[in-house]
Amino acid sequence: MTTARSQDTPTAMIDRVASLLEVFAGHHRLTLAQISRRARLPRSSAHRILQRLVELGWVERQGFQYTIGIRMFELGSQAVRRDRVHQAALPVMHAVHRSTGLTAHLSVLVSSDVLHLERIGGWPDKDKGWRLGARQPAVHAAAGRALLARLDAAERPALEFPPPATPYGIRTPAHLDRELQRIRDRSGVAIDVQSCTAGITAVAAPIGPSESGLRAALSLCGPTDTMPTDKAVAVVRTAAMDIWYAASGLTRPRGRPHRAPARGGAAPAVAGG
Amino acid sequence: MTTARSQDTPTAMIDRVASLLEVFAGHHRLTLAQISRRARLPRSSAHRILQRLVELGWVERQGFQYTIGIRMFELGSQAVRRDRVHQAALPVMHAVHRSTGLTAHLSVLVSSDVLHLERIGGWPDKDKGWRLGARQPAVHAAAGRALLARLDAAERPALEFPPPATPYGIRTPAHLDRELQRIRDRSGVAIDVQSCTAGITAVAAPIGPSESGLRAALSLCGPTDTMPTDKAVAVVRTAAMDIWYAASGLTRPRGRPHRAPARGGAAPAVAGG
Repeated sequence: MTTARSQDTPTAMIDRVASLLEVFAGHHRLTLAQISRRARLPRSSAHRILQRLVELGWVERQGFQYTIGIRMFELGSQAVRRDRVHQAALPVMHAVHRSTGLTAHLSVLVSSDVLHLERIGGWPDKDKGWRLGARQPAVHAAAGRALLARLDAAERPALEFPPPATPYGIRTPAHLDRELQRIRDRSGVAIDVQSCTAGITAVAAPIGPSESGLRAALSLCGPTDTMPTDKAVAVVRTAAMDIWYAASGLTRPRGRPHRAPARGGAAPAVAGG
Repeated sequence: MTTARSQDTPTAMIDRVASLLEVFAGHHRLTLAQISRRARLPRSSAHRILQRLVELGWVERQGFQYTIGIRMFELGSQAVRRDRVHQAALPVMHAVHRSTGLTAHLSVLVSSDVLHLERIGGWPDKDKGWRLGARQPAVHAAAGRALLARLDAAERPALEFPPPATPYGIRTPAHLDRELQRIRDRSGVAIDVQSCTAGITAVAAPIGPSESGLRAALSLCGPTDTMPTDKAVAVVRTAAMDIWYAASGLTRPRGRPHRAPARGGAAPAVAGG
């Protein structure tokens, strides 16, 4: 029985469907010929899988081209938006954006990149790396370095050092290590002044203590010319803590709203429920 | 050769993977037992598919529970964010939110619902139907009715009339038809005063002329108590036009920024490129 069933679902088959959907990463519309070539599937096989995926709403057909269907967006965004950290982050990010005008990103470490799960704010509107759902190399992003700084060598993913976009970018492991030490000296907050993108300064703080195992960070970015960096460092640190308290059901010690608790201070009281 | 290949990709197999992923719609974390029951798959089969999907990043395992993986979110949001209407809408939505304080939604008609593809603004923060990636029944949402109003009976999807959440809600096809006629009389803008959600007023306008075949609408919502409805109607109408002009590469007639062109006015000039 089990042996018979195992023939029903060959790994190769799942991989074929997955590889077909994966070709859309980085491409909006593709023809059947492009899909079959990129997925390394025979045209007839690609066509058959596509037909079924179109029926299921996972892929959409527009004339001779195919795009990822709205069902993928829907399932994927529901997944992210039901996450407790995301739910806790959203009101904090809106408040921070309102009070500072800076754009807030909630990002997670995914292999050697940071992926932006949420973004509040309209600026920057041109650079694709800062968009919701986009990735930036972890070594180049403030959020990435804030997360890397608290992983020990064994936990750290295999990092890539793609050529930086500006002369201030990080190019070598030794350069990164010096930067990560500076972040630790700043008790975890990363500052990036135009090393990711020319004209953009970002500050980032990890969410939750390192024991939480979370690999999510909050960052705030603004134009380098006008960015109130010191204020932004304080705001991002406090906001990241607010998110952690809200997500974990803990409450901050009373009477100290919007200020970072002193290091080594009393453990927060459990709110109950 | 083709015959041999067609055995490689049975529709049943694709459906099995899809049905397994679909069980996560409406559920954040599920155990293997829950997944196999909901997907109507034998436990061993569900386990094997899940294992492979976890390796591919499409599903994540946390202890004994599974969630949709970040890869689904990434592929799905890239798909939506590369769409020209979405790209054109984003700066307009930010500008409208900044100038009015109202929350802006970009939504599309998906069967008998509207699905929110983008949202700018933090309010309302409790009601799940207004979240990004969430759906509302088209008959109950301003965006849905704005889109339904311009479809003729043949184009209209089979509609559902789920019990409305408030006494003002639409309950019957005849009631809907009267409302759609009012929308047409208002040259396409829908107004919803607490019929979708108590305390919320929304106005919505379809994007692009009906011949464009687009089924996307822009809506603005705010608290019924303070909503400047007449102003919001004018703003949403103009903003929807701005999005359409930007998405289609057309330019508005000069010297009339942020005002709706008179009906029957001159056709917009082609911007070239």
